[in-house]
Amino acid sequence: MRVLGVDPGLTRCGLGVVDGGVGRTVRCVAVDVVRTPVDATLANRLLKISDAVEEWLDRYRPEAVAVERVFSQHNVRTVMGTAQAGGVVALSAARRGLPVVFHTPSEMKAAVTGSGRADKAQVTDMVTRLLGLAEAPSPADAADALGLAICHLWREPMRARLAEAEARAAELAKKHRARLAAAAKAAKAKGAAR
Amino acid sequence: MRVLGVDPGLTRCGLGVVDGGVGRTVRCVAVDVVRTPVDATLANRLLKISDAVEEWLDRYRPEAVAVERVFSQHNVRTVMGTAQAGGVVALSAARRGLPVVFHTPSEMKAAVTGSGRADKAQVTDMVTRLLGLAEAPSPADAADALGLAICHLWREPMRARLAEAEARAAELAKKHRARLAAAAKAAKAKGAAR
Repeated sequence: MRVLGVDPGLTRCGLGVVDGGVGRTVRCVAVDVVRTPVDATLANRLLKISDAVEEWLDRYRPEAVAVERVFSQHNVRTVMGTAQAGGVVALSAARRGLPVVFHTPSEMKAAVTGSGRADKAQVTDMVTRLLGLAEAPSPADAADALGLAICHLWREPMRARLAEAEARAAELAKKHRARLAAAAKAAKAKGAAR
Repeated sequence: MRVLGVDPGLTRCGLGVVDGGVGRTVRCVAVDVVRTPVDATLANRLLKISDAVEEWLDRYRPEAVAVERVFSQHNVRTVMGTAQAGGVVALSAARRGLPVVFHTPSEMKAAVTGSGRADKAQVTDMVTRLLGLAEAPSPADAADALGLAICHLWREPMRARLAEAEARAAELAKKHRARLAAAAKAAKAKGAAR
């Protein structure tokens, strides 16, 4: 399975494509950072990011897109731009019918380093090692994008199995409730017949 | 001039097209609210909003798009969705080379009612009167979208004149600095020649 990981941002937007192989093997297909000028309008910055993502989706044809889920941080202005960048990425994926999953930074860090509180250097280090890269991806946004793709490859099968188990449990519960209702109805009918 | 006003949101996204005439006359061309299901994925909700906006841009051919600028509110989750919806709207406009301007809720309220602190009922009331509508637009998101378009029509000429005046002032200041520098250089040369 091939995944495009995206660390959204207006100033720097990290893009990384990773192929998942047998077991937990992963291979880096491409990694880059899209930059947009601070003095451009918001609309034109979003357009530049959208164009880059469209080009990557055309060129690398991933089967899924993993985007970092933005949380409220210190700077509200930055968060808004990040959310908007993530939004246009999700839009491009949805237009092609590709699944888009948002992973939190801690989910990504936990998947890649084993700790949800790992720092940037640890994430970059583990991503470099896991993908067997000759050089550490730089800046951090590039490493994060690859980390998100890896996180998705490793978490998705578990998430899918969990969702399936939950659906099965819900079905069993529904059947159980139906049986209870039928039994209650039968008991009531018996009582009325007496 | 024709403006598309957008009150962005995932659950309800208000869209309103207004034509500006001579002086402060305004005319409502179209108004509606796009709704997306709460249980749909974020990507698919953004796609639905984007599709609706694309259709409106095709059908009504506005010359500018006015979007409500989102501020940090109480619910961070809602703010993110609103920012993302606004982002995909800005993207559609940018793809067509249309100017996108973000107005704050208080700018819109001040333009429409005269007070930046007007409540929803006052905004709806004034929008209904200004556009001479037989019925008040409902829900509030529809009225807000029309209010944003009106705000843009009335503020934009002033904003453009201000920007022009600022550019002229900057040009004068630059010339003045050049004259000062030339005078200083001449004085220095005169001193050296003595």
